[in-house]
Amino acid sequence: MPLRLRPNDPTFYDLFAESANHLVDGSRILADLLDTSAGSGLDASGEIARQMKDAEHAADETTHAIIKRVNSTFVTPFDREDIYRLASDLDDVMDYMEEAVDSIHLFGLENLPAEVAEQIEVLQRAASLTAETMPRLRTMKDLAEYWIEINRLENTGDQVHRRIIAKLFSGEFDALTVMKVKSVVDLFEAAIDAFEHVANTVEQIAVKES
Amino acid sequence: MPLRLRPNDPTFYDLFAESANHLVDGSRILADLLDTSAGSGLDASGEIARQMKDAEHAADETTHAIIKRVNSTFVTPFDREDIYRLASDLDDVMDYMEEAVDSIHLFGLENLPAEVAEQIEVLQRAASLTAETMPRLRTMKDLAEYWIEINRLENTGDQVHRRIIAKLFSGEFDALTVMKVKSVVDLFEAAIDAFEHVANTVEQIAVKES
Amino acid sequence: MPLRLRPNDPTFYDLFAESANHLVDGSRILADLLDTSAGSGLDASGEIARQMKDAEHAADETTHAIIKRVNSTFVTPFDREDIYRLASDLDDVMDYMEEAVDSIHLFGLENLPAEVAEQIEVLQRAASLTAETMPRLRTMKDLAEYWIEINRLENTGDQVHRRIIAKLFSGEFDALTVMKVKSVVDLFEAAIDAFEHVANTVEQIAVKES
Repeated sequence: MPLRLRPNDPTFYDLFAESANHLVDGSRILADLLDTSAGSGLDASGEIARQMKDAEHAADETTHAIIKRVNSTFVTPFDREDIYRLASDLDDVMDYMEEAVDSIHLFGLENLPAEVAEQIEVLQRAASLTAETMPRLRTMKDLAEYWIEINRLENTGDQVHRRIIAKLFSGEFDALTVMKVKSVVDLFEAAIDAFEHVANTVEQIAVKES
Repeated sequence: MPLRLRPNDPTFYDLFAESANHLVDGSRILADLLDTSAGSGLDASGEIARQMKDAEHAADETTHAIIKRVNSTFVTPFDREDIYRLASDLDDVMDYMEEAVDSIHLFGLENLPAEVAEQIEVLQRAASLTAETMPRLRTMKDLAEYWIEINRLENTGDQVHRRIIAKLFSGEFDALTVMKVKSVVDLFEAAIDAFEHVANTVEQIAVKES
Repeated sequence: MPLRLRPNDPTFYDLFAESANHLVDGSRILADLLDTSAGSGLDASGEIARQMKDAEHAADETTHAIIKRVNSTFVTPFDREDIYRLASDLDDVMDYMEEAVDSIHLFGLENLPAEVAEQIEVLQRAASLTAETMPRLRTMKDLAEYWIEINRLENTGDQVHRRIIAKLFSGEFDALTVMKVKSVVDLFEAAIDAFEHVANTVEQIAVKES
């Protein structure tokens, strides 16, 4: 196991960017799923579920690469436990997105409320913003605008989620449909919240290192 | 950005007390909501929802003031990440209380099980106790009685919550009503748990600093 | 309060092993519950609920003993906050198992889907593995195989949980039954996830200390 002695090993930043880019892929697959569900149905969501599973596996490999590097690197750019936590926060987002897609497939859902498109849009924007931000961990500069914007997106996501739940509870749908759709939109909401956890971890790292 | 060089900047204690006082306000608004819902109904809960939204905004400002001060203060009374975490734990309580009230309003709920009054009482007592305790962070003395009492309150809240759920699942109510009321009482339970997270964070800070 | 000056107080390892052994007991009680529910019903689950409550109290006492020792020990084998967190992660597993059993009793459930046996098996294996691993914290050696296996078990648990939910949502059951059973199997899933949190904490301690 070769020790790395450079004080700021650049590959951590590359790996975090890679991890966030998997989330860009994941959220694009979700957008494809919505387009598909407008048209055809279950077969397509089976294909989408496979794509999402692949994206999740790729993300897992990046996460493991980060953990492995933490264990084999002598000097890390910031505290080991913060690297570990950031990697694990990024991983959580993918897990929620993958579970949402798998649930749609497992429950045989063919329709979702139109407002789900707004949740997916929030996820796509949060993913892009996070991917753009990861390389900036190197300088720790101009990070505040990132977490302020993520907080704003999380707020938007929260409002959309509450509107969807109110609609589901309005009496239009049977109880089982309500439970199925609620499971899925709760997972999208959890994915959005998980982006906020990523941003909080970045903020705490910045606070510590400043 | 002026550096503060006094080893124990007193304003952190003031800000934590201020943050906890917003929770005292929030839990009183919840108590008002129950009184109201005994009498009239939705219109009033609209007014209560606005009051709660205001309380949440005030709490957000205090949280931001704490974060800002962490970033501009040279010597902090305890670890930066613990200050950050305590601020964020206190903020979580308010978020759950606000979401509960907003949900009652959104779902058009006009009645809640009588036992909800016991949840609110737990929240009011936990809020008062937390507000009284924050100034004592300065000396780190006599904190054990605080977290023991919060654990006891959380236990009581847990028992009440389980009784409410058993009642909701008893067959008296239609499925949609069960889901709506469950969403609300789960949020009250989450708010009570969040007070326990605050107490755990205080305990961990005390353990570290002792 | 006598100070302990030995650099690696052995009793922390004993206490963590004791804490994990309570989880072995708890998961065995769950297995007994399933055997029972195959035969008789509610009366028996009342007896099981009492056994589980006893196991939870015993676990609480171990947790408190760990916290007390952290507060009275001068030199701890690893960071105070990590000891605190590991104790609290172990405690969480028991809380979820106890709440699941109490829920079965409270909701008067007499049957659970056959797949629940697979969840309990995962819990029993995770508990044994965790109990075997705790004494190895002393040397911090050969821990990787533990967390890799826990991740694998959590994955299995996740797949089983998704299958159970898909079955519950298939239309065979009335909405209230779905909600009751879902509450219980979600708690078993939370207990499995909590074992993964224990493993993550162990991994982070190992990363820090290595």
